Formats: sequence, structure tokens, C-alpha cells
Amino acid sequence: MPNSFGHLFRITTWGESHGPGIGVVIDGCPPLLPITAGEIQAELDRRRPGQSDITTPRKEADTIEILSGVYEGRTTGTPIGLLVRNTDQRSSAYNEMRQAFRPSHADFTYQAKFGVRDPNGGGRSSARETIGRVAAGAIARKILCLAHGIETRAYITRIHDIAAPAVTAFPSLAEVEATAVRCPHPATAEKMIARIKDVRSRGDSVGGVIECRIRNVPAGLGEPVFDRLEADLAKAMLSLPATKGFEIGSGFDGTLLKGSEHNDLFENRDGRVRTATNNSGGVQGGISNGEEIVFRVAFKPTATILQPQATVDLQGNATELMGKGRHDPCVVPRAVVIVEAMASLVLLDHAMRQTAQNRAFVFPST
Amino acid sequence: MPNSFGHLFRITTWGESHGPGIGVVIDGCPPLLPITAGEIQAELDRRRPGQSDITTPRKEADTIEILSGVYEGRTTGTPIGLLVRNTDQRSSAYNEMRQAFRPSHADFTYQAKFGVRDPNGGGRSSARETIGRVAAGAIARKILCLAHGIETRAYITRIHDIAAPAVTAFPSLAEVEATAVRCPHPATAEKMIARIKDVRSRGDSVGGVIECRIRNVPAGLGEPVFDRLEADLAKAMLSLPATKGFEIGSGFDGTLLKGSEHNDLFENRDGRVRTATNNSGGVQGGISNGEEIVFRVAFKPTATILQPQATVDLQGNATELMGKGRHDPCVVPRAVVIVEAMASLVLLDHAMRQTAQNRAFVFPST
Amino acid sequence: MPNSFGHLFRITTWGESHGPGIGVVIDGCPPLLPITAGEIQAELDRRRPGQSDITTPRKEADTIEILSGVYEGRTTGTPIGLLVRNTDQRSSAYNEMRQAFRPSHADFTYQAKFGVRDPNGGGRSSARETIGRVAAGAIARKILCLAHGIETRAYITRIHDIAAPAVTAFPSLAEVEATAVRCPHPATAEKMIARIKDVRSRGDSVGGVIECRIRNVPAGLGEPVFDRLEADLAKAMLSLPATKGFEIGSGFDGTLLKGSEHNDLFENRDGRVRTATNNSGGVQGGISNGEEIVFRVAFKPTATILQPQATVDLQGNATELMGKGRHDPCVVPRAVVIVEAMASLVLLDHAMRQTAQNRAFVFPST
Amino acid sequence: MPNSFGHLFRITTWGESHGPGIGVVIDGCPPLLPITAGEIQAELDRRRPGQSDITTPRKEADTIEILSGVYEGRTTGTPIGLLVRNTDQRSSAYNEMRQAFRPSHADFTYQAKFGVRDPNGGGRSSARETIGRVAAGAIARKILCLAHGIETRAYITRIHDIAAPAVTAFPSLAEVEATAVRCPHPATAEKMIARIKDVRSRGDSVGGVIECRIRNVPAGLGEPVFDRLEADLAKAMLSLPATKGFEIGSGFDGTLLKGSEHNDLFENRDGRVRTATNNSGGVQGGISNGEEIVFRVAFKPTATILQPQATVDLQGNATELMGKGRHDPCVVPRAVVIVEAMASLVLLDHAMRQTAQNRAFVFPST
Repeated sequence: MPNSFGHLFRITTWGESHGPGIGVVIDGCPPLLPITAGEIQAELDRRRPGQSDITTPRKEADTIEILSGVYEGRTTGTPIGLLVRNTDQRSSAYNEMRQAFRPSHADFTYQAKFGVRDPNGGGRSSARETIGRVAAGAIARKILCLAHGIETRAYITRIHDIAAPAVTAFPSLAEVEATAVRCPHPATAEKMIARIKDVRSRGDSVGGVIECRIRNVPAGLGEPVFDRLEADLAKAMLSLPATKGFEIGSGFDGTLLKGSEHNDLFENRDGRVRTATNNSGGVQGGISNGEEIVFRVAFKPTATILQPQATVDLQGNATELMGKGRHDPCVVPRAVVIVEAMASLVLLDHAMRQTAQNRAFVFPST
Repeated sequence: MPNSFGHLFRITTWGESHGPGIGVVIDGCPPLLPITAGEIQAELDRRRPGQSDITTPRKEADTIEILSGVYEGRTTGTPIGLLVRNTDQRSSAYNEMRQAFRPSHADFTYQAKFGVRDPNGGGRSSARETIGRVAAGAIARKILCLAHGIETRAYITRIHDIAAPAVTAFPSLAEVEATAVRCPHPATAEKMIARIKDVRSRGDSVGGVIECRIRNVPAGLGEPVFDRLEADLAKAMLSLPATKGFEIGSGFDGTLLKGSEHNDLFENRDGRVRTATNNSGGVQGGISNGEEIVFRVAFKPTATILQPQATVDLQGNATELMGKGRHDPCVVPRAVVIVEAMASLVLLDHAMRQTAQNRAFVFPST
Repeated sequence: MPNSFGHLFRITTWGESHGPGIGVVIDGCPPLLPITAGEIQAELDRRRPGQSDITTPRKEADTIEILSGVYEGRTTGTPIGLLVRNTDQRSSAYNEMRQAFRPSHADFTYQAKFGVRDPNGGGRSSARETIGRVAAGAIARKILCLAHGIETRAYITRIHDIAAPAVTAFPSLAEVEATAVRCPHPATAEKMIARIKDVRSRGDSVGGVIECRIRNVPAGLGEPVFDRLEADLAKAMLSLPATKGFEIGSGFDGTLLKGSEHNDLFENRDGRVRTATNNSGGVQGGISNGEEIVFRVAFKPTATILQPQATVDLQGNATELMGKGRHDPCVVPRAVVIVEAMASLVLLDHAMRQTAQNRAFVFPST
Repeated sequence: MPNSFGHLFRITTWGESHGPGIGVVIDGCPPLLPITAGEIQAELDRRRPGQSDITTPRKEADTIEILSGVYEGRTTGTPIGLLVRNTDQRSSAYNEMRQAFRPSHADFTYQAKFGVRDPNGGGRSSARETIGRVAAGAIARKILCLAHGIETRAYITRIHDIAAPAVTAFPSLAEVEATAVRCPHPATAEKMIARIKDVRSRGDSVGGVIECRIRNVPAGLGEPVFDRLEADLAKAMLSLPATKGFEIGSGFDGTLLKGSEHNDLFENRDGRVRTATNNSGGVQGGISNGEEIVFRVAFKPTATILQPQATVDLQGNATELMGKGRHDPCVVPRAVVIVEAMASLVLLDHAMRQTAQNRAFVFPST
């Protein structure tokens, strides 16, 4: 269903930007996992607006409440209901937007689809919806980490036209969090921050590219043929606001190679089957091969800019809108944690599916 | 489920490359649609190997049989079972591959996942699986065309490093089919064909990029928040063999623009709300906005090459494999029809979902 | 997923009996439906404990809060989040139950399944879970009523061995609500109430049978072959706590008739195709035929009784438990509204599915 | 989707009674299971018409072909396609039925739903659709048996008003198959057969009740709250043609007991937690408790009778139809194997779900 994601570890998000609250229900969580509101809150705090001087000054505490599914500090296997109350509701800031469609926002398409929309802060189309994803992702990544040592790390490789050198090793969390822009290359990070501040000062915005790596993934996750691991990752990423592209491993540039250059040769390394290169990005035939999963996601520049823009109103008449409300000149740094959350949800779901089909009933192979 | 795709117009494919046959079941097809085996066959013939001198010489008639769901030339609303018998089964060609993993194929990952695999022709991981997709897509596109005039057109924009000039108008089917490489720019097509023949002569392979356009899509298709139209398109495309990337509208290059450059301003044109530019690629907030949908898919070079490659065997020992069997030096031209099929399946499914939620029960808007 | 129900109008419930709250998320609701918290509350009040002298004295206000999906009094098509805070949490009443399994409750099976359980008030297995169903059902029945005049009416036909005369006409809501026991035959209702009070005075409990009728259902709802209307109704009813049986139309007694007696002959009545009798219960081949849908549900006697019962503890040692907490000696009267809610959810979902497949694309029948 | 059943072990059936064939696709089957066409055929032969003198003389070999998913005698984890060609197609026998609706068949409702139907042999509504279920069920029961020793046994307890004495022990397959009517009580079986022959001689038909037992089910299968084991069993059974009721454990008669009589007291027996009685039918709170699962299904008398019956034609005019074609005077004996198949599918699916959530990731319980 449209507001649910995952088959076995399934999340359903609900809530509007300026309504009473935002939340998520997680169905299928394994029981007996130790989890606290504080652990979830820690991830939410990484996503929160107002955390640095390059994000929106909207100040929401975004305090998570666990409503169900956890008993005496452990999950019970029943649905986990999580709620964040909205506190900073300035609906009047959106009065103009009731009557006109903000360019490159979802105002027009929601209106076309449903015949109605909550205009305050973008309603359901607001990036606040991702709070539920990040909260659920915090639980998923803890399970993955405890059970397999699987780690997911996203970081920024490009803001506008400022690209970091290629990342070759798995960056530490500290390296990523070292700067407000979450690029693990400090010199580039500095330039990125300067660029963001510069476009903000002009009332403009920029986008960028996030790369994400997942390590310690066992071979065998992913389902042929439609639910390939990369297909589900692609869907997860393109379901995020402002994303325009996804690529795994060699990606679009891989099309510039010949087969003899692109193929990842197998070798026996460290006592197991490994590939000499990783153009596949850790996935072959839709199934993880035990190498690092590596993918990239393109985020367009923030649609809200503090400049007057031509548009039309509900009646189809030409008019002009000037961005209001509080918005990030660049959403990409805050999106890093959302990318990690979605990737964790995809991995955990596939780990559970793999177990169900291939570990529930094991028949001798001869 | 892993071998099913779609929510309301749902297909389930089955079959191995060299088993008795390949097929698909379509559940949820609207009744009373006039359809013949010939119409489905016509699409399959576009996908078929051996259709030109740049594809594999594997000669399969790939004759479709309608097993159910059609009565006196019309669909009945019950499941449509479609079957293609495999006729050209040369399992002996694959003897070596039983013992060793072909690089950048799914041999190793299937073995890791299931503990067993049908090695003949890649078994389930063969691109022959897409026969069922193309057959189902033929029905989907007929419905879309009859009901809304929706047309889907894919074509090649790049092979290896040979790129065609940007396509600005919706190409005709004839323009695409004019050359074996399905690039609507004849001069570039010629160069692409030469490149493919060249790499083939060296026992090598190349990949490329397919662009796809969909026109006459009404505003309102696509579901916030997880089942966004672009998210489902991304999943559909990344579920195809050999794909490494997906982008919609401005895509990865869109990250090089500022918000003021990227935003698609609304205007009243032709009596309805239109956008002045189409960086959004026809989708905003996950919902179609009535503009042309435009996306691109990256296909890596074919993994099978006629050169010896290092690999390991089932026991993990180093060995060498030399590509055998009959394979395309470049799968991209044949993939054009598969991309169209998958795009049609996504569009139709969303059209049915849109109807169910928003047209089944219409309440006055005030 | 286990805590979700429905395909297109999909509800997900969450919450434990004595946790912070209980709730439901509704995904897929048609937009622009006028709805207020008060309308939902009215249905919840029919389900609420403490409403009469034959139910549990547990006094919960059970006040519903709409958290999302409704804007200025109308649904927006986005997920509707509903929350009821638990206020009357007396966990200490359940101390004994942490250590021992209450007979014919879900304590043992939850423990066996999950390795953990919230013992307070039965946790997730409590009938308080049905609050979310009733709230969602209130919305579903309003849509059905506005759009088609479809009405669902459940009532009690038997308590213990006290059976009411067969109901032949569709009872009014007033007739059902006239007595605390919700049996529309006043003389029988009186006897039922006396029986319930009698068993309560002995610390015992009773069950009974609910019949449900749905009128103004258009022909054509229900999906062959697995999602038959009666199959989904059966699942809906057997998903309710304490249910042990479901029958539609002639039901189990229909097996005592011969085909010549059981068949419902067709006739042209009131200008449309009708059946002379209704042994089918309004459904043929899994699809509604336009007659009244009639089904019955068996509810076992309440498991909690105020008598000492033999059982075992967590360590498997024999012990004894005496029912505590506040419980209904007979849950059936309060279950009437839950049966109506579930039936409404099934009907609405099928109405939406019918539209999607059969009305979205209409091809001339020749 | 309407023609699919199950979440993790998912089957999709397709095919019409008199079309080219009937089949099923099984998605999610565990790999490495040894299986042959012969084993599946053996179950189909139990279902087949013409197997005794109380069934329809329609003689179909119903020969199964495995099209995919099995390699060198073992499942590969990919979809298993199974096909039975229809060979005995006498469409002319159904000419009259094109124009008029057979009473208590699905002719009218299919026409109302889809605006079209394949009239030959009932098309998709024919009981031949269950061939796919039985074939898939054969695989499911082999897995259950190999992995857990789980056995499913269905048998007839009543035909028309002839009831067998209560079955207390789990009957052997030989006892059930000893008579054509599949009632394990020989004296009653004889009377049942006589009754079936008697009604057939009058051109009439009868129904009956099937009871089904499942043993060696581990505690913990079934999902609260909507996917309770009994809810999924109820859906499975009511999805079968001609069924009108389902009850588990004490069923409808359980409503005649008081709580003190109905509750199943726990005791420590054979070193594990058992219940002293089994009114619960092996399921508590929707989850198996380790006792035998016991349920019953009501089958109405066969709708086709060889007597003239009043009906209406496609134009709504009164007319008369006389049963033709070859039909069972009583479908219940052949339905025994279908009930077993569906029960096995439900159990296996839940066993896989249980594993995925509760065994994939095991956290220490303190």
C-alpha cells in the first residue's frame, strides 16, 4: 500500500507537516530486541532541522514517544507505534500557498490526484514524513548490527558542482559527522558549506549526490526476479523527496566500460569467494555477493527558494509566488541519515525473507 | 512476492532458460479487452534473439500460447496464462558452468542463496525470463493506448561512449525501429552498430543507456509516499538484468543546477496547467503532472565475453572460464522493448490504483 | 502483514491493552469524505465497556483523536492516524498472570511464539485491539452508506442456549440498540440478560451467536477465486477474539437440504434479476448477487471466569489461577459493533477492487 | 491478488474448465526439496473425477507437467510452474448455459461483475480450478511432513443427514481412503454411499461436512491479530467452491457451553505444556498451542441437478434450464483432498512467517 514499505519488516508512515503529529507503525519486528526511545531519538536528532547553520532554522524538538510493541525495554514482536507531536505549527506562513501551486513542489499534483490537499507546510508531501522512516530505520539498523555486524554508512560526495575525491575505504561515523555537510573529506566539506551559504544568501538552493556503503552483508540477500536487492534499494531511494536518480556499483559510468573491463573476476580471498573488483556494487543477479554494497542517489536542488517565481493559482490564472516558511537551502546533508534508514530497512527485510525461504526448511543438498 | 510485480495489474513470471518453457500469469486484467496471440507475438518478436546481425544468433521462435483468461477474442477478467515453450535447449554448452562461476553473472549468488541452481543458460537468471514481462506489457500498453492514448517509447541514447544528440520530440516507432540498434538518430545509430560489431569481433561486449518517454499521461498517477511513480519505475528498471542505474527528468545532472534554474514554473497553456520546462520528468511529489514522463536506464556491458577469465569453482579453487553459448555483444537494443513493457505495467497499475481510491467514491468538493 | 487488513482500504492496528494507547492507521481512504471525530466516537461508544450493567465495569472514556489525513473536516486521501490513549491502567491486577498462563487465553501461545509477552490485560491479545477496527469501520460504513446506501446490521440471535426467533426483515438500529444485549426480539433479549446476570453471579461466562445482514449491495463485489467475498468475511470474523465459527446463508444447516431444495431460482423481480430464496446468503461463486448478505458468527464463552482454574506456570509447574481484572461475563453484545465494522471494511475494500478492475477501463461489450 | 494465496509460500492459479489447460505457479518454495511429478500426480488422482462410481464420469487424465523450478529432481527456490492440459472439452454441452443463468451457480455473478464469462463448464468458476491448489498442496504437505512430521487428514463426518460417530483418534490415510466416500467409519460410509446413489437416481444432489485434523503442529504458528491461524484457515476453506461454513474446535456448539465448561485447562503432560481438553481446536489467540488442530467445513449440495429449474436468461426473461454436462451428485468426497491441500498451504505459510520474524534474529531473553 502507498504508505507502507517492506514485506516482513513493514513500516507504515502517517502524518502531515503541520497536523497534530507524525508517526510510523512497524509490523513484523523480531521480539526481544533491547531498544529505548533514546536510541531512536539519537537518529532523529541527526535528521532534525536546526542542527547546524546550513539547515532550516525550524526548531522542532521532534521528541519520539513509543506507544506500543516494547515491554520492559524489549520489543515484543507486536506492532511498534511511534509518535512525534508537531509543535512548531505556523500555518499562517502558508496562506498564499493555499491559492497557488509552488513550482516543482507537489501542490499541483496532490490537488490533481485527490481534489484536495493540506497546504500547510506541504502537508503529507513534506519531508517531515521521513521522521517515521528514520525512527523505524534506527530499529532496523540495530538489529542488523547486533545480528550480523551489518553497517550502513551514507555521506555526501557532491554538492552542486563541488565533488569530493572518490571514497575508497568505509568511512567512520565520526568522519561523516565531523562537518555539518556530512562529507568525510574535510577540505571539500569546507567548500561545500561555503557554497551552501553562498546560495542561501542569494535566496537560492542547491542539490547534490549521496553515496552509501553497506558492509558485512552476507551473500544471498535479494530475491530474483522483481525484488532484486538493487531494485528495492532503487525504489527506497526514489521514494525519498527530491531524489532524481539512483545508481549502484559502476552505475551510469559503467556503461563506458567494455565487458572485459567491467567484469568482476572471482578469486579465493580470506578463505571465501570474493571479487577482485566491485563494479557490481555488491549485487549480482539481484542478490548480494558478500562485497560492500555501494550506491549513489541524486538529490535535486531544494524547490523552495526565496525568489519570486511565476506560477498559476487554483483557477489556472497566472500569478507569482515568493518562497516563505523556513527551508533548507540544501537538503542533502540531512538526507544522509534518511538514506541510511531506508537502506537498513531494505536489508533487514531481505534478511528476513532469505531466512524464511532458505533457512526455515533445510533439505540436505545430497 | 519475488516473482510478481504490480498491485492491481499483477504479473507473475516463471521459467528457466533451458527448461520446458517460460511464462507469465496476469491477474487483474480488465475484462472485455480485445486481444489476440498475434498482438502479443508482435511485441515478443521485437525482443527475440536473432532478429538482426548485432544480436545473439540463438534462434528461438518464442511462440506464445494463450492458456486462459481470453474467451472469443476478449479478456474475461480472469487470470491470463501465457506460455512460450523453449525449443533451442543446448544444455551441453553449459557443462563447464556447472562447476565454476561465470564472472559478473548470477551463478555464485544463486548458489549462495539457494544452495542449488540450474546452470543451463543461467537458469532463472537468464534474460529469457523477460519474455513474460514483454508479453504482459503488450497487453498493458494496449489498454493504456485504448483508454487514454498513453504511449510509451524507449530508444537508445548511448552505446559505450557513442552518444546520440538529445532527443527533444517524442520519436515515432518507425524512427526507433529503423535501425537494428534502435537509436532514432540514424547517423549515430550507424556508429553504434559499428562499435558493437567491433567489440564482438574482439570477443568483448558493451553496454549503454536507454531513454524512455511516456506521453498523454493524465495528472494524478502515482502514490505518495512509498509508491511514487518514479520509485516504482526505478524498481521496475533495476529489476531488469544488467541495469545499474536509473534517473528521471534532470537526473544526476540536475544536481549541477541551482533551484532557480531547476524549478519548473507553472503556466496556463492549451487551457490547462503546464510547466514551462520539464526538469521534473513529468513527476512531482511522486505523482504525474501531465507532462511527458522521461527517464533513463543504464545497462552495463554484457557479462558473457568470448575471452578467458579468472574465476573460482564450486570448491573455491581458482580456475578459468571461457564464454560459451550464444550471447549478445550488447543487450541494449533488445532491452528497448523490455523497458517499454515494464514502464507500461507501472503506468497501468497506477492508473487502476488511482481509479480505485479517487474515482470509486466521489464526494462533492464542497 | 499480520496487523493489517484490506487491500485498497487498508487498516493497520497497533497497541496493547495497558500500554500508552491503542490506534489504527487507515491507508487508501477516498478523499473529500466529510468526517468528524464525533462520528467515529459514536461508534466507539457502542463498543465501550461500562455502557450497561451486563458489561465489564472497566471505565475507559476511549476518546478518539484524529492525528492525520483529515483537513478542514474532510479526508485528504492520505493516511488517517487515529489514537485512543489508555487511561485506566491497573497493571498490578495482572501480577499473577505474569507467572502463569490463563486457560483458553493467548498467554501461552504468545509466550511460545515470541518468547515474551506483555502480561498486563492480555497485552496485544486484549479485545481493546478492536478499538482501531471499530474506528476504521465507522469511516468505511459512512462511505458505503453515502455512496451506495449500503447498510450493515449485526444483532444477537443466541446467548448460551437462548435463541431468538429467526429474523426475517432487516432490523432497524433502534431495534438492535433497544436492549443492552442487542437482540432485536425484546422478549428473548430479556431472557438473555437474565442469563448473563445469572452466570456472572456464579463467576462464570457465556457465549453466543451474532447474525449480520448487509443490504443494498450491488451485484459484482467479491473476487474469484481466493478473495471470494465470503472468504474475506470469514477471515474478518475469525480474526476477532473469541470467535469459533462462521457460516453464510444456509450455512451448516444447508448441508441437510438436497440440491433441489437448496438452489436459489432466478426470477425477474422489480425489473432486475433476483433469487426467489436466499440460501446463498447473497453470494454466489464468491461474488455478491444483489440479495441481502447474511452470515453468522459463533463466539465462545469468555475465557476469564471468577473461579479457580488449574494451569501451569512459566516453568511448567502445576498451579492455579483465579480470574481477576474486570471482564465481561459475555462479550457478544459488545461484539455486535465490531462485526459490523469488519463487515464494512470487507465490503468497502471489495467495492474499490471491483471499481479498479472493472470500471477503470471499460471496453464496449461488442 | 484475487487468484493468489499465501504470503511466503504463495500460489497463483489460472485456467478455465474447458480452456487449453489449468495450472498454478508456486512462488517461495524452499530449495533442495526432492519432488517428482509422480508425487504431485498421486494427490491429483485422489481429486480426479471418475475415480469411483459416486463421482462424475468426466474422465480427465489430469496429467501434471512440471514446467519450471525443479532441477534434477529437486526444487531450486525459483517459481514452480505446473500445467494440466484439459483434454475432455465438450463445449457443446453448455450451449444453453450461454443464454441463461444456472441457479446457485456463478453464471449470473460473473456476468454482473465482468460483463462477460466463459460459459463452458463454468469457465473459471469450475471446481477444476482446484487442480492447481491440490498440486501445490502436495508440495506443501511434503515439506511439512519432512520438516516437522506435520500431517493433515481430512475426512467426511456427514453426508446430508447421515452423520458418522465423533472421530476421536487421528484416522490413518488407509481408513479414509477405504471407501469412495472417504468417511473413516465403514458402516456410516456405506449408508452415505447409498444416499448419494439414491439422490443421483432422482437427478438430485446432496452436501455434507468435512472434518480436518492436523497433528504435530508446533506451538507458535499463526499471527496476531488479523492473520490468525484460524482466520487464514477459514478464508482458505470459504474460498473453496460450494462451502457455506467453517468452525474450529468447539465451533458453533461451543456457544452452548459455559466458560467453566469450555476452558481448556493447562497441564504438564509428556514433559510439555498441554491442555486437558481441546475445545480451542489447537489454536488460542490465533496461534497454535501444540494440540491437534481440528476444524470442520460445510459443503452445500451440488448446484447442478438433472431436473428442470426456473431461471432467467441474459435479457432477464423467465426461462427454464435442465442440468447437463457431467457432474457429481455430491462433491464432498472429492473435496477431502482439496481441504487437506488448502490446510497444508496455510500451515506452511505460517511456519515460514514464524521463522522469518522469530528465528531469523534471536536475541537473548535476558
